[in-house]
Amino acid sequence: MGILIQGVRIVDARGAHEGDVSIDGSVIAEVGHGLERKAGDRVIDGRGKAVIPGLINTHTHAAMVLLRSYADDLALSEWLKNRIWPLEKKLTSEDVRIGTRLACLEMVRSGTTTFNDMYFHGDSVARAAEELGVRACVSEVLIGDFQTGRIEEGLERLKARRNVIPAVGPHAAYSVSLDMLKNAAALAERHDARVHFHLAETREEVDTFRAREGKGLVEALDEIGFLSPRLLAAHGVWLDEREISQLARRGVSVSHCPASNMKLCAGKALDYETMERHSLNVTLGTDGAASNNNLDMFESMKFAALLQKHHYGNPARLSAREAFRMATVNGARALGIHAGLIEPGYLADVALLDLERPCFTPDHDILSNIVYAARGDCVDTVIVGGRIVMENGRVEGERTVLEEARKTARDLVNR
Amino acid sequence: MGILIQGVRIVDARGAHEGDVSIDGSVIAEVGHGLERKAGDRVIDGRGKAVIPGLINTHTHAAMVLLRSYADDLALSEWLKNRIWPLEKKLTSEDVRIGTRLACLEMVRSGTTTFNDMYFHGDSVARAAEELGVRACVSEVLIGDFQTGRIEEGLERLKARRNVIPAVGPHAAYSVSLDMLKNAAALAERHDARVHFHLAETREEVDTFRAREGKGLVEALDEIGFLSPRLLAAHGVWLDEREISQLARRGVSVSHCPASNMKLCAGKALDYETMERHSLNVTLGTDGAASNNNLDMFESMKFAALLQKHHYGNPARLSAREAFRMATVNGARALGIHAGLIEPGYLADVALLDLERPCFTPDHDILSNIVYAARGDCVDTVIVGGRIVMENGRVEGERTVLEEARKTARDLVNR
Repeated sequence: MGILIQGVRIVDARGAHEGDVSIDGSVIAEVGHGLERKAGDRVIDGRGKAVIPGLINTHTHAAMVLLRSYADDLALSEWLKNRIWPLEKKLTSEDVRIGTRLACLEMVRSGTTTFNDMYFHGDSVARAAEELGVRACVSEVLIGDFQTGRIEEGLERLKARRNVIPAVGPHAAYSVSLDMLKNAAALAERHDARVHFHLAETREEVDTFRAREGKGLVEALDEIGFLSPRLLAAHGVWLDEREISQLARRGVSVSHCPASNMKLCAGKALDYETMERHSLNVTLGTDGAASNNNLDMFESMKFAALLQKHHYGNPARLSAREAFRMATVNGARALGIHAGLIEPGYLADVALLDLERPCFTPDHDILSNIVYAARGDCVDTVIVGGRIVMENGRVEGERTVLEEARKTARDLVNR
Repeated sequence: MGILIQGVRIVDARGAHEGDVSIDGSVIAEVGHGLERKAGDRVIDGRGKAVIPGLINTHTHAAMVLLRSYADDLALSEWLKNRIWPLEKKLTSEDVRIGTRLACLEMVRSGTTTFNDMYFHGDSVARAAEELGVRACVSEVLIGDFQTGRIEEGLERLKARRNVIPAVGPHAAYSVSLDMLKNAAALAERHDARVHFHLAETREEVDTFRAREGKGLVEALDEIGFLSPRLLAAHGVWLDEREISQLARRGVSVSHCPASNMKLCAGKALDYETMERHSLNVTLGTDGAASNNNLDMFESMKFAALLQKHHYGNPARLSAREAFRMATVNGARALGIHAGLIEPGYLADVALLDLERPCFTPDHDILSNIVYAARGDCVDTVIVGGRIVMENGRVEGERTVLEEARKTARDLVNR
């Protein structure tokens, strides 16, 4: 049974045009005019709507929505050591499931169909994503030493879940030894999993590493074979041109998290222009809600574009089209899924936007309207892998998700 | 006939508590518990909602929504000289009315109850604001020389309108001579009007002035008596501490437009900390939609807070509470209206927020949720001067406003 979206504005990073889109099973079957309704096809009237590829959030810690606005406007160490970490220590597997359900609801509502997660209790993350119908790349965060066997079992369990991409999540070079990073990469290779890692978020991180190891972070990671197309490196703020070209040569992808970088003061804006020049795949992430404080990829697209313009003093830098590409095709490429374009054969992960709103009026340039004027609330209907997970602004069981999360968060801080 | 909001979360820059709010005529009558419903009182069930002071947008060119996303990602001069100005030359008084209606719809939907406008055809701006029920401080933009008599007639016409605050709008020191600025200030004094002016938006502006006049901009403006509590200076990015303290001593207010400053590359972030230290009244604006590209004050609060943190490298800088104060009480003070707090005697300009959403879940800190997690779409009901202008997400005549604006914008670019 498929879906036929009729007379809709079709928008992806290549541009916009009018037409019909048919979905067969989990993929986009046809894009054209006057497409025939097949037996059993569900028909969606696309008039006054635009269909875009579902947005891909390549760096988050979903369950941290439970800590949304719990500790803001603080110095980084105070924020992390005295507020966030003590609460995280108390998180149970069920808390993570409840929190991730809230995150998935928020992401669906704002047009995100795939997210790349790194957190504790990976099984609960995967279960929550499956419950809400969102595609997820799930990695259990690895800090310090870890049992390879336990990780391998986890990866196999993740593979059994619907729309779940298994990943290994070594936290960062300051929290995991080079030996363990080497093991993590080998493990990912063996189980055909992705690798999710924090790289060069702060100057302190890269300086401390160089002082300790006597060489640069990227150089050291390359020596142990950690750099590969499987690797999604979050942040990548403090990289020089040599490191950027090295990451590009190895096919690594970077996840830019502009709102989080600004809120936590990463210290500068990632060097998008140099990354572009070296064809490094730059994608977009919200980071966890504790440092953002939402998971709205529309907002992150605007922050990405405006941060580049402001920080580098050039209003022509990082256009709306480039920001949209980061949040769609580039994100898909980073996670190894055939998505991010409205094109036959691509995954039917799409969002329908309601164009009957001030932010889309007038209609001089829909990509500019999407990136600079709109926010996630313009999303009307969301389809993931050919399944409708939100329709006309309604997500099944929404109220329960909100109530459970409220209760769990209250309990967590009082525990 | 009044309004009684029962069992609502009452939030303003001072904090949050539960209670009832009663409105009598155009002002807030009582705030407390178990308030009595008076005869003819309209009752609003506040459960699951928060009431906040309506947001005050202290710098915009409302009708420029007609140029939303018409020319983005361009160098400033190319943007202004080759794209924006040619279109603006063609704007008729009716275009401005239609455009301002769209802007008012957008502002109401995102909880803005008062906006400070500077544009052409002030009568049309005032008429549109009156039609949509929004409070507006309206100034006819003055460029080059102007006929004092014509301006004075305009001010008197504006005074006759409901919820309209008359203002004089000399554009900037690079587009209006010091003599004319002096006349404008005297005119405002004579007619008890506000003054709306662009000040120190770019480095070029202040450097050129100093080269031409042999003195600083603020110093020169003070000498001609231009600085007073009537003056709202938009931007104020390029001011040193001496100038900031001088503006503060004269009771001038500044409108910070973070999204516009970032998008157009003003070059740095306004020095909020020094302004605070000198008790300069800092308020918040979206600027025109052509340089933002929306009029969402929720988004501007987040941009203001994150830009300060990023630009000055301090995550504790400009807290959510301070951003909220800028967008409410500070804005009211700048425009000389008794608004911005949920307090008896204050104008009944309020917005009700729907708390049954992911962005307000969980509820560790509602001010942080409002500034960092929410966007304008959380606004459910809006009251201006005791009149309901939006209820449960519905604004009367919305579709017509959108259609007229679409048609007018299309016609404008093809004219």
